[in-house]
Amino acid sequence: MKLTVGKSELISALKKVSNVNSTRSPIPVVSNIHFTAEDNKIILRTTDLELSVRTEIDASVEVSGCTTIPCKKLNEIVNKLPNGDISIEVTDHQAHIKAGKSFFRIVGMDPKEFPIEDAPVETRSFTRPVNELSRNLKKIAYSASTDDSRYVLNGILFSIRSGQFCMVATDGRRLAMMEQTIDGDSSLDCDAVLPMKAVNELIKSLDADGEVTINLTDNQASFTTDNTLIVTKLVDGNYPNFRNVIPSSFDYSAVVNRGAFTEALERVSLMVSESCLSVQVTFDTTAVTLHTSSAELGESTEELTMDFNGEKMEVAFNPKFLADPLKQLDCDNLIFKINSVSNPIALTGDEGFTYIIMPMRN
Amino acid sequence: MKLTVGKSELISALKKVSNVNSTRSPIPVVSNIHFTAEDNKIILRTTDLELSVRTEIDASVEVSGCTTIPCKKLNEIVNKLPNGDISIEVTDHQAHIKAGKSFFRIVGMDPKEFPIEDAPVETRSFTRPVNELSRNLKKIAYSASTDDSRYVLNGILFSIRSGQFCMVATDGRRLAMMEQTIDGDSSLDCDAVLPMKAVNELIKSLDADGEVTINLTDNQASFTTDNTLIVTKLVDGNYPNFRNVIPSSFDYSAVVNRGAFTEALERVSLMVSESCLSVQVTFDTTAVTLHTSSAELGESTEELTMDFNGEKMEVAFNPKFLADPLKQLDCDNLIFKINSVSNPIALTGDEGFTYIIMPMRN
Repeated sequence: MKLTVGKSELISALKKVSNVNSTRSPIPVVSNIHFTAEDNKIILRTTDLELSVRTEIDASVEVSGCTTIPCKKLNEIVNKLPNGDISIEVTDHQAHIKAGKSFFRIVGMDPKEFPIEDAPVETRSFTRPVNELSRNLKKIAYSASTDDSRYVLNGILFSIRSGQFCMVATDGRRLAMMEQTIDGDSSLDCDAVLPMKAVNELIKSLDADGEVTINLTDNQASFTTDNTLIVTKLVDGNYPNFRNVIPSSFDYSAVVNRGAFTEALERVSLMVSESCLSVQVTFDTTAVTLHTSSAELGESTEELTMDFNGEKMEVAFNPKFLADPLKQLDCDNLIFKINSVSNPIALTGDEGFTYIIMPMRN
Repeated sequence: MKLTVGKSELISALKKVSNVNSTRSPIPVVSNIHFTAEDNKIILRTTDLELSVRTEIDASVEVSGCTTIPCKKLNEIVNKLPNGDISIEVTDHQAHIKAGKSFFRIVGMDPKEFPIEDAPVETRSFTRPVNELSRNLKKIAYSASTDDSRYVLNGILFSIRSGQFCMVATDGRRLAMMEQTIDGDSSLDCDAVLPMKAVNELIKSLDADGEVTINLTDNQASFTTDNTLIVTKLVDGNYPNFRNVIPSSFDYSAVVNRGAFTEALERVSLMVSESCLSVQVTFDTTAVTLHTSSAELGESTEELTMDFNGEKMEVAFNPKFLADPLKQLDCDNLIFKINSVSNPIALTGDEGFTYIIMPMRN
C-alpha cells in the first residue's frame, strides 16, 4: 500500500471512527483501525463487535492494499504531524508515515482477523436530515436509565407506527419523547431499542449537512450518510408501553421564559442538600416562585413572571430531573402542562418534544 | 454587617482566596472564608493552617462587621448570580444575599475560631515585579520532587547570597534554577524552602501589574501586593548544595530553535514505550537527529538544523525530563551546553535560567 493524504482530511476521518475503537476486546486486532486504500480513497473501519463505523476520504493512492494500524497511536501521531501532505507506505503490516522531516514506523496487525460489518440488508428504511437526528437524540438521551437491572431502559426506543416516528428515553421516573411525522406507510412499523453507545456515537459524529438513511432490521440498525456508515446491534427485550405514561389531556398550562427559568433553577438548586433533595415550585397566575431550604446550608428563593391559567399550586420536583431537559431545548418559552400536584406533569416547548415528570411527594 | 458590592469585583476577590481553602481541616471553620466589612472595603481571608491568603476589595459598607461563609457554596452562588450589584446582610452568622430577584440565606460560622495569619515581622524584605516572580517560578516548578521521602525537595529553594537571588527546584535527577541580581546587600542572605502549595498559589494568583514585596523570616515567607497578602510556613530541613551539581564550565555548545525542537521531541516521544524509555539525540555540526524505537510500537525519527561546535555525539535522554522546561521558556533559541555524554548537560536560553540534566546510560 502506498498513498498520500492531507493531514486535515485524515484527522477528520479519524475523529469519526476513533470513538468506537475498543481496547478491551478479546480480539486484539479490534483495538486497531482497519485501513484500506483503493480507487483513490481510504476506507477506515473500527468496531467494538457491537457497534461499527466505516468512513472514507479521498486520497492519492499509488498502490492499493489493506492493513490495520493501532488506533490511539495513529491518532496521536497524525495530530502532531506538521500540516500538509502525509505519505503512508505499508509493508508487512508496518506503516511507514512521512511528513516534512518527520518519520514514523508503526507496527500494525494482519487485517484478516478484523470483523468487517457491512450495511445490513435494507428492511425498514427511511431518511431524515442528519443534523435533525442528532439534535433530537440529544433532546431525550439524558432520560435513559443507567441502571443495569432493567437493561432495555439503558437504550433509546425508535418506535414507528403509520408514519409517526417516536424516539423515547425513560429511566422509569421521567420520560422524554420526540415525535415526528415521516414519509412512509405501515411497512415501516417496528420497535427498535438502540444501545446508548450507538446513540452517543450518532450525537457526536452526525454533524454534517445532508440526509441520513436509517435502516432498522430485526436485530440491527444502520445509519448511512454521504461517506459514513454506522451499524449497531439492537438491545434485546421489550420496551415498556410508553404511551400509557403520557396523560391524554391536561387541565392547566403555565408558560415561562426558558432561559430565565433555567438560570433561576440552577441558582436555587445550589441550596439543595442531602436532607432536602427537592425544589418547591409555586405556580401562580402571573408569577412562579422556586424555593429550597435546608437546615445545614440555608435557603434560596427565585421569582419569575409566568402565565398560568390555574389556581395557585405548589409542586415539589427533583431539581436534576427538572433541569435535565432545559439545556437541550431550543424554544424561547417552556410550557408546563398540569392536571394536579399528584399527577404526572408534562414539559413541552420544542416541536414534537414531550417530557413527563412525576412531582415528588412532600 | 450590611454592604453592597459588584459581582465581578467579588468574583475576582473570591478567586484569589479560594484555592487555599481547606475542607479537610480538623478545625471546621477553616473550610469557610473569613469575611470582614469595614471602612468601605471587604477583607476576605482563607487558610489551610500552613498557607494563608488575605485580599481586599472596595465595597459600599453600611454596617461593618465580621463573619465566616462556606467557601465553596459562596463561590457557586456568586458565580451564578445575575450581573450587577450584590447586597449582603449578616445576622447571627447567616449571610442574606440578594441580587435582582434572587435571594439566598447561607448558614455560616462564628469567626472567633478562625486562625488569622497577619504579615510576619519584616526580616529580610525585597521587591520584585509581580509578573516576573510568577513567570520565573513557572520556569522551574516542574523540577521539584513529588517523592515524600526527601520532603525538602518537594519545595522550591529561595537562596540569597550578596544580592544574587536564586530560585531552585530539583528532584535529584534534574535541576532547574533561575538566578537574578536584586537590590540588596548581604543582610538579605538566607536559604528558605517554600512548600509547593504556596508556589502554586503564587503562580496562580500573582497575575497583576506592580510589585510584590517578598519577606523571608526564619520560618515564614510572605508576599504582599497592592491588595493581597500571602503568608506561608517554610519547609523545615536543609536543601542540598545545588551549586555542586552545576559544572563550572562546558566545552561545547549546541543551538537549536526552541519551537521546532519542542514539536519534534513531542512527536518522537510518541514511540517511547515501556521497553525503551529514552530518546536518542545525535548532535552534529549542522543538524540534530531525534530517534526512538521499540519492538512493540515501531520507531520514529526527526531531524532539525543545529549549530554545534563539537564532534558528532549521541546522547540518550529521558524524554519527559528533556521536554519539561521547553514549554515554560520564552527564548527563541535553546542552548545545550555539553562536556561529554557521561557528564551533566545544561540547557539554557532565557536570561538567568539554567537546567541541568544527566544523560541516560545506554
